[in-house]
Amino acid sequence: MAGGLPAPETFPAQAIAEIARRAIEDHPGDTLGYGPIEGLPELRDALAQRFSTADLKLTRDNVLVTTSGMQGLDLVGKVLLEEGGIIAGQFPTYLGALDAWRPRLPRFRKLMLDAPDLDPVALFAGAQFAYTVPNFSNPTGILVGTPMRETLVEAAHRTGTWLVEDDPYGGLHYDGGPLPRLIELSARRYPRSPYDGPVLYMGTLSKEIAPGLRIGWVIAAPAMIEALTLAKQGSDMCTSGVTQRIALGALEAGLIEQIQPAVIDLYRARRDALCAAMAEHLTAWFQWEIPTGGMFVWAVARDPALDTDVLLKRAMEAGVCVTPSSVFDASGENRRAIRINFTRNEPEKLREGVRRLATAVQAMQANRN
Amino acid sequence: MAGGLPAPETFPAQAIAEIARRAIEDHPGDTLGYGPIEGLPELRDALAQRFSTADLKLTRDNVLVTTSGMQGLDLVGKVLLEEGGIIAGQFPTYLGALDAWRPRLPRFRKLMLDAPDLDPVALFAGAQFAYTVPNFSNPTGILVGTPMRETLVEAAHRTGTWLVEDDPYGGLHYDGGPLPRLIELSARRYPRSPYDGPVLYMGTLSKEIAPGLRIGWVIAAPAMIEALTLAKQGSDMCTSGVTQRIALGALEAGLIEQIQPAVIDLYRARRDALCAAMAEHLTAWFQWEIPTGGMFVWAVARDPALDTDVLLKRAMEAGVCVTPSSVFDASGENRRAIRINFTRNEPEKLREGVRRLATAVQAMQANRN
Repeated sequence: MAGGLPAPETFPAQAIAEIARRAIEDHPGDTLGYGPIEGLPELRDALAQRFSTADLKLTRDNVLVTTSGMQGLDLVGKVLLEEGGIIAGQFPTYLGALDAWRPRLPRFRKLMLDAPDLDPVALFAGAQFAYTVPNFSNPTGILVGTPMRETLVEAAHRTGTWLVEDDPYGGLHYDGGPLPRLIELSARRYPRSPYDGPVLYMGTLSKEIAPGLRIGWVIAAPAMIEALTLAKQGSDMCTSGVTQRIALGALEAGLIEQIQPAVIDLYRARRDALCAAMAEHLTAWFQWEIPTGGMFVWAVARDPALDTDVLLKRAMEAGVCVTPSSVFDASGENRRAIRINFTRNEPEKLREGVRRLATAVQAMQANRN
Repeated sequence: MAGGLPAPETFPAQAIAEIARRAIEDHPGDTLGYGPIEGLPELRDALAQRFSTADLKLTRDNVLVTTSGMQGLDLVGKVLLEEGGIIAGQFPTYLGALDAWRPRLPRFRKLMLDAPDLDPVALFAGAQFAYTVPNFSNPTGILVGTPMRETLVEAAHRTGTWLVEDDPYGGLHYDGGPLPRLIELSARRYPRSPYDGPVLYMGTLSKEIAPGLRIGWVIAAPAMIEALTLAKQGSDMCTSGVTQRIALGALEAGLIEQIQPAVIDLYRARRDALCAAMAEHLTAWFQWEIPTGGMFVWAVARDPALDTDVLLKRAMEAGVCVTPSSVFDASGENRRAIRINFTRNEPEKLREGVRRLATAVQAMQANRN
């Protein structure tokens, strides 16, 4: 229950196997040769079309195909981050982003979106970029509301700071439809065609189809796409034509729309099973909000002295693994919370995991007292 | 004739299409899920076995799968290169390596392997690593002889400097068998099992099967593989399971061995056609050696004042494109040579390209005089 893994039974393997065979047979040059650094034109067109709205007008020039969402983060660091530069980052934040940017020794300003005195303009000013995961953020699972989205976009427009909208989980909503994207709100303020504003929107097929394709994308102003393309040339030259053509085939076949309802039902049931078990066994020690989407429940200890790094050791002895909050904090100071994944395991396993976790907490707290 | 592209008609598309379909059907978890950062264990085992010899003893721990050979270069920079650090690099060198390392502003010591007073120990000392392409180097096409290979390896062992052996072209030899790899020579001096010496050997499937798979590898000491794995986590998390399983299937099916003889015959005939046309039309202005492998002929102008950046413009007006030497020189100073690719085009096109190039040179030199 520690990882951020999708349920493998959701992978449409049979459909993808057939799409792969046809893609390579019908397009040997595209799939097996070198392709353009910025991605196959047809895939860029399909993504531009998929994310265009009445206000957000996208063309191929707004789209860079990346080898996974992770590569998008790496490229953003290469283009925007000078050594020791400042990132205004939603806090706590995605471990992978920290990994990608750590070599440049950035300084983090904590963008705590639930803090009552939050001042995004002050936090954005002088930062090389702001980093947010508005939909079901990893690790906390929170959904940023529309007023705060407006506030963030306004701060980006006022300060001229690039605003990264990382959206791997947007498709996994269990109790309501999606809220407007930051890039959409930005386009409403700045209706140029093609889009030319300060938001970099990052997506991936990892959560909606399969992570093994390693296909992601960045949607941004054409000049930013050009800069990211240059950085990509020195990273892996181009993304595999095989996986790009599979992605295109999957989009054209409507594979996401076909499997999404079942995936959402499956994950909603698992979330409910986990949260019910937590309510039964963990209420004395932790508090949490039931996430309305994504993959994780974020549980904060009631006792500020409960150290979740220590709890992890006890939990592993009891045969269950969760992720302690320290790994989501660049300074490693937050040791009071845990992240629990509910997408990977069946309900019975989730219940057993929570029982074991409760046993571990109980033993640990009894020892302390 | 400017790129470094393989001939697409050599891609075994039908076989790969079928391997891809079966890989995804038979291994949905491996192909479509997240995999280990360092690569699929079975693929690492297959590569360790493929490159092991009586002296070079490799295990899975010696192997990192990379998303293209280019990513290997990027990761080497991330792990070994501090900002402003020194690289002792075979000169002139591969453009892609410069791209990968340029953000760290390295200083280059020119490792000119044909210079009579070459002193590799002096050049290696204090460098963060040495970079070589011993087989049919891009752009010059030269094959480094065995005595110089021994000298390079000895310098690496004496100075403790990491020695990168980049080998994308090793399989494309037209007039003789392969020479011993640097990592093999290193293992003979330092016969530990698994290999634990200073050479990092980098390979790729791009030239021997198809670049669109974006599958490469680094073979090195286990501790170096661990460091590169950490860097890979922040680059793209893991290489696509789809393309890794296709690579494994292709290796198991002996696909390289099946197609290699025909590829070599095809490319040898193209090299011969290019060199014959050059001998007929370009002898007055250029000199070159006939390469015994690889993808390129490197032609140096007899007239030191002939500027190949200018020639490129004239050549493009005449409808032919080659690569001027300035792009292979970090300082952009070498403007006296051109690189001509012979793998991508059919003999008749190569001959026509050379005729156009000759027309362009002739017009340019007539204008000057």
